[in-house]
Amino acid sequence: MRRPAIDFYYEFSSPYSYLAATRIGALAERAGVHVEWKPFMLGPIFAELGYSSSPFVDVPLKGNHMWRDVERLAVHYGLPDFVKPDPFPVNTLLAARVALHLNDASRPGFTVAAYKAMFAKGCDLSDRTVVQRVLAGLGHYCDHVMEAAELPANKEALKAQTQAARAAGVFGAPSFVAQDGELFWGNDRLEMALAHAVEAAGLPEASKAS
Amino acid sequence: MRRPAIDFYYEFSSPYSYLAATRIGALAERAGVHVEWKPFMLGPIFAELGYSSSPFVDVPLKGNHMWRDVERLAVHYGLPDFVKPDPFPVNTLLAARVALHLNDASRPGFTVAAYKAMFAKGCDLSDRTVVQRVLAGLGHYCDHVMEAAELPANKEALKAQTQAARAAGVFGAPSFVAQDGELFWGNDRLEMALAHAVEAAGLPEASKAS
Repeated sequence: MRRPAIDFYYEFSSPYSYLAATRIGALAERAGVHVEWKPFMLGPIFAELGYSSSPFVDVPLKGNHMWRDVERLAVHYGLPDFVKPDPFPVNTLLAARVALHLNDASRPGFTVAAYKAMFAKGCDLSDRTVVQRVLAGLGHYCDHVMEAAELPANKEALKAQTQAARAAGVFGAPSFVAQDGELFWGNDRLEMALAHAVEAAGLPEASKAS
Repeated sequence: MRRPAIDFYYEFSSPYSYLAATRIGALAERAGVHVEWKPFMLGPIFAELGYSSSPFVDVPLKGNHMWRDVERLAVHYGLPDFVKPDPFPVNTLLAARVALHLNDASRPGFTVAAYKAMFAKGCDLSDRTVVQRVLAGLGHYCDHVMEAAELPANKEALKAQTQAARAAGVFGAPSFVAQDGELFWGNDRLEMALAHAVEAAGLPEASKAS
């Protein structure tokens, strides 16, 4: 039996990714599933799918429900009161680059802190100083980190990760991809994705679905 | 305290409405919530929203995930193996008219049986004889019911119910609308909608959110 593992693809401007990011640590710990935190950019994928913007922006009724839904879920999960970013979506390219640059041990903490800055404290994550403050608050040498995050190699790495997401079939965020390639879309599927990861790891290679 | 109640808006061609329809009876019974079963037509609402077809058709990656997701959820809920209708979406106008025509006691049973004919047994619900067989299987005088369902008054009543759905803010199916107007979209929100209905019924009128 392999160690159960899952790829967690998240986009910083996605409210449902925020909800998943605040929940996945404890749930995966309990389930015994290793999580690869994978920031990516949803914009290029939406463009490929022919969306002019987020469906939450393109269809106002759907967008209004989404904000109310996230607000209700934040209460349900015991998170701080949800703050809707205005304007939306927010340019979160820098945050994604920083998250990708950080190592596996630092990435989850930065990710959750950056999400909370935006969706619980109402900070503008497109503002460099906000990203700096989040990093500094976690004890990072923020200038060094931000400089490294914006080197060409890291910019390319984020593009490659977005391509990897696309190759895995990701069309929205958050998405969870198990080792057998099974994809689960949305914060609502986090628990099912973890259960699947455990099950998939226990099956002999030959018996798994392709 | 009023009796907790909820409007359950469903569209026959919607796979997630099928999942909700098979679950809502027992869950609402346990929660003590009265359910108004409200068949409506999503097509006119999608047209108003500017969709050329279902988003599951327009965005193939999203559609593929949806079919796999429904298949997994059917297993999770202990339902029979899910059968994908082909082609999709199915013209379910007749089924909606019949469901609307039936009285409150008969509507849930017909709804669930019609959904199972389509999504568990692979029958073509756009076929009149399938609708007839579902009715006959429930002991209805199927010719009488179908004749009444296609009278102008009932056709107009279905249009009115679709307008009522639109007025309640419905933009997808299934949707659940509580007495205070709170709308919950999707099979995933059924439990939350029922809990909200119970809570809303217990609050004095004046303290409720607008």
